[in-house]
Amino acid sequence: MARPGSLSGFPEFLPSQRAVELAVIDALRETFELHGFGSIETRSVEQLDQLLRKGDTSHEVYVLRRLHAEDSDSGLGLHFDLTVPLARYVLEHASRLEFPFRRYQIQRCWRGERPQEGRYREFTQADIDIIGRDVLSADADVEVTTVMAEALSRLPLPPVTLQINNRKLIEGFYLGLGIDDTAAVMRAVDKLDKVGPDGVLGLLAAAGLSTAQSGACAALAQIRANDTSFTDSVTRLGITHPLLDEGLQELATAMAAAAPTNTDTFTVVADLSIARGLDYYTGTVFEGRTAEHGSLSICAGGRYDALASDGRSTYPGVGISLGITRLLAPLIARGLLDTDRSVPSCVLVALPSEDSRPLSLDVARRLRARGIPTELAPSAARYGKQIRHAERRGIPYVWFPAGDEPGTSDEVKDIRSGVQQPADASSWLPPARDLRPQIVRGKST
Amino acid sequence: MARPGSLSGFPEFLPSQRAVELAVIDALRETFELHGFGSIETRSVEQLDQLLRKGDTSHEVYVLRRLHAEDSDSGLGLHFDLTVPLARYVLEHASRLEFPFRRYQIQRCWRGERPQEGRYREFTQADIDIIGRDVLSADADVEVTTVMAEALSRLPLPPVTLQINNRKLIEGFYLGLGIDDTAAVMRAVDKLDKVGPDGVLGLLAAAGLSTAQSGACAALAQIRANDTSFTDSVTRLGITHPLLDEGLQELATAMAAAAPTNTDTFTVVADLSIARGLDYYTGTVFEGRTAEHGSLSICAGGRYDALASDGRSTYPGVGISLGITRLLAPLIARGLLDTDRSVPSCVLVALPSEDSRPLSLDVARRLRARGIPTELAPSAARYGKQIRHAERRGIPYVWFPAGDEPGTSDEVKDIRSGVQQPADASSWLPPARDLRPQIVRGKST
Repeated sequence: MARPGSLSGFPEFLPSQRAVELAVIDALRETFELHGFGSIETRSVEQLDQLLRKGDTSHEVYVLRRLHAEDSDSGLGLHFDLTVPLARYVLEHASRLEFPFRRYQIQRCWRGERPQEGRYREFTQADIDIIGRDVLSADADVEVTTVMAEALSRLPLPPVTLQINNRKLIEGFYLGLGIDDTAAVMRAVDKLDKVGPDGVLGLLAAAGLSTAQSGACAALAQIRANDTSFTDSVTRLGITHPLLDEGLQELATAMAAAAPTNTDTFTVVADLSIARGLDYYTGTVFEGRTAEHGSLSICAGGRYDALASDGRSTYPGVGISLGITRLLAPLIARGLLDTDRSVPSCVLVALPSEDSRPLSLDVARRLRARGIPTELAPSAARYGKQIRHAERRGIPYVWFPAGDEPGTSDEVKDIRSGVQQPADASSWLPPARDLRPQIVRGKST
Repeated sequence: MARPGSLSGFPEFLPSQRAVELAVIDALRETFELHGFGSIETRSVEQLDQLLRKGDTSHEVYVLRRLHAEDSDSGLGLHFDLTVPLARYVLEHASRLEFPFRRYQIQRCWRGERPQEGRYREFTQADIDIIGRDVLSADADVEVTTVMAEALSRLPLPPVTLQINNRKLIEGFYLGLGIDDTAAVMRAVDKLDKVGPDGVLGLLAAAGLSTAQSGACAALAQIRANDTSFTDSVTRLGITHPLLDEGLQELATAMAAAAPTNTDTFTVVADLSIARGLDYYTGTVFEGRTAEHGSLSICAGGRYDALASDGRSTYPGVGISLGITRLLAPLIARGLLDTDRSVPSCVLVALPSEDSRPLSLDVARRLRARGIPTELAPSAARYGKQIRHAERRGIPYVWFPAGDEPGTSDEVKDIRSGVQQPADASSWLPPARDLRPQIVRGKST
C-alpha cells in the first residue's frame, strides 16, 4: 500500500503533541467540575432540519449517506457546533434534567469549509453553558465568564484577552440615539476589525445614520476598560435609555466579578465594539483572542434569551465555547507547544537478560502500584541500546534490577543528568514534575 | 419547536449516566498510561478506498457529502473501527514514530447498521495496540492481554471472561490432521455458538472432512482451561505439527502471564473454540464476554503479522479493542449502572441573602482551592428550597456561611444523615468517597 497522505483541514497529532491536547482538556475539565459543571456528550449527528433551523444554510454541513443506501441521504448531518446539539438535548431530555442545568461538553465538530489557517473541517470544542427553564438570573452570565476565565488562566498558553460586551448596552445606546434598525448598526460595527473606523462610518452612513449618530456609535465602539470605568465613558456620551442602563449594570457586574481573575497571561476587558452581530445573543457577549491567532477569536459566546423552546417552556441560556483545535493546532504545528515525551512512561525497566523478565516485570508492577507510569525494555539488548530506547521516547529514568544475589541493589539512572543511584521499587518516587509528560513551550520555528 | 425524538442506534446519556462512562474511560486511561501506552486520536474520517481495502464491503460505512456540494460525495467515510485508522496513521507518520509503538485510542466509531440490542450506529471503542517495524516479539501479545485484563478487572462491571486462543495452534492442528483448507474449518468452528456442536460437525462434513478429522476438530474446540493444562488436553488428541507446537507455546506463555490477573469479576481462560475466522489474525486471538451481554463479545482482538505495509517496511501488530458503548449502554439503559449525582458538586454553598453572595463565593473559592467541587445555590430562597436543590442533584453537603458576626461559625450539613456541624472552608474535607460521583450498581428493572 502506498503511504497515505494527510487530509487538509483534518489535523492529527503525534503522541507527544496529543499529550498537550490531553493536558489542556484535563485542565479544562478539572476547572469545570470544580465549579459543578457536569459532563455530557451528545450524538455527533443531528437531523438536518435541526441543523438548518432558523433558515441559516451558511454552515457547510456534512450530510451522511450509508454506503449501501446508494443515492439516498440519511437525513442526518454532523453537528457543526455544540450549541445546536445542546438545544436539542435539553428539549429531548427536559423532563429528566434539573434546571438551572449546568453542563460542559468537550467534543468534536465538523464543517465542510475550505480549510485555511485557523479553520478546520474537524475540530474539538469545549463549551460550558447554564440553561434555565423560563428564567435564568444574570448571575449565570457572571458565572460562565469567571469559570472560563479561571480555566483559561490555568492553561500554558500565550496571553489571552477575553473581551466582554453586552447587547442590551449597545442596543439601548442605539435606541437612545433614535436608531430603529439596531441590527444593521451592529452588523456594521462588527466589521471594525475588517474595514477600520472609516469603513464603519461609511457603512453607518449607508445605513441612513446622521453624522452625529454615526459619530456616537463609533465613539461607543472605541471604549475599552479592564475595570468598570467604561460606565463613566459611556455616560459621558450623553445618551440615555432604560435598556442601556440595564446593559451597563450587567456588564459592570460581570467585569467586577471577572477582573480579579486577571493574571499575566489572562485579561478580561470590557470592549464595547464586540457585538457578534450574526448570532442570536440577547445580553452578555464574549470573544477571546490571543496575539498568536491574529483576528480569529479562540473563544466566543453569550446569552440567549431562548436557547430552545418547546411550547410549554422556554429555555434561556448563557455559555462560552472554546476552540481547542483552533487554539492548539497552529501553536503545535509551529513547534510552539509540545511535551517532553512521546509516551506516558516515567521509568523504563531494563531487562538484564531474557531469563530475568519476571524480575523486571515485578519491578514494573511495584512502581505502577504507586502510580508511576512504567514500561519494560522490549528486549535484553545491551544496556546502551536499552538506554537509547528510553532517550528516543523522552523517558527520564532507566531502572536496573539487581537480581537475586545478596548484597546487590537495584539502581535507577536519571538519563538526563547521568546520575545513577541505588533504589527500592517499593519506595522510590520521582520528583512530581517527572511523573507525567511536561508541556514545553518552544520558540517559533 | 416540537420536542425532538431520540435516534435509534445513537445512544445518549443523562449527566449521571455520562459520569459512569467518564469514570470507566478514566480508569481505562489510567491503567493504559501506567503501562506506558500513549494516547492518540485519529481523524474521524478516512478515504473510502482505505476503509474498503481488502475488498471488504460488508461494513455499513457512512459516506460524507458537503451539503452545498449537491450530489457529489467527498470520497470520505466515517471510520467503523480504530484499527483501519491506526494502520493509516502508522504509515502516514512512520518516520516520526518510535517502534515498537504502543498506543491507546478511545474514540467514537460509526456503522450504518440496522440498530439492535448491542449494535449501535455511533459507539465508543477503547483500543490498545503494540505495533512493531518488521518484527514484534510474542511478548507483546502477553503484554496487551495482561494490560487489558488489568484494566477490565478494575472496572465496576459484571464478571468478564476473556477467552484466549491462538490461530497458529488451531491452524497447526488442522494441518497436522491433513486438512488443506484450514480457513473453511475455522469458519465452521466459529459458528459453534450459533449452530451447536452437531451443526459444526455437519458443516465440517460438508467441507469434505472425514469423520475422524471432524471429530478431532470438534474435540479441540471443546477444550477450555483457566491455566496451562490445555496443553496436555491437546497433546492427548495425538496430533503433531510444528505450527501447532509454536501456537501451544505462545498460548501457554500468555496464559501463564495473564492468569495471575484473575479476580472474582475477571477471568482469563484458554478457549480453543475461539477462531475469529472472519478477521486477519495470525497468532493470539481474544474475545471478552459477560453473562449480561449474551453472545455478543464486549472486547476482541489479536495479532496481525501485517497491520500495514508500505513497501519498505511491514508493521506487525497486536491489540485488543473494548466496546465501551456496547459494554455500558445496555447496563445503563436497564438501570444496572448509574452514579449517585447528576453534577460533580460535592458541596452546595447556600446563599443566606442576595447581599451575602460575595461571602458565599469566597467559601466556594476556598473549597475549590482544595479540590472540592462546589457550586452556589442559584438564589437566596429559603433554606428548605436550597437544600432541595442539592437533594435533587445528589449533592451530599450544604454549606451555611455564618456571616461576619463575631462568635458565629460556618456550618456544613450532610443532607443524607441530617448531621450539621461547624466547619471551616479552609480546612474541612469530606470523606474521599464523597468527593466525586460514585458508581451505583442497581438491580435489573
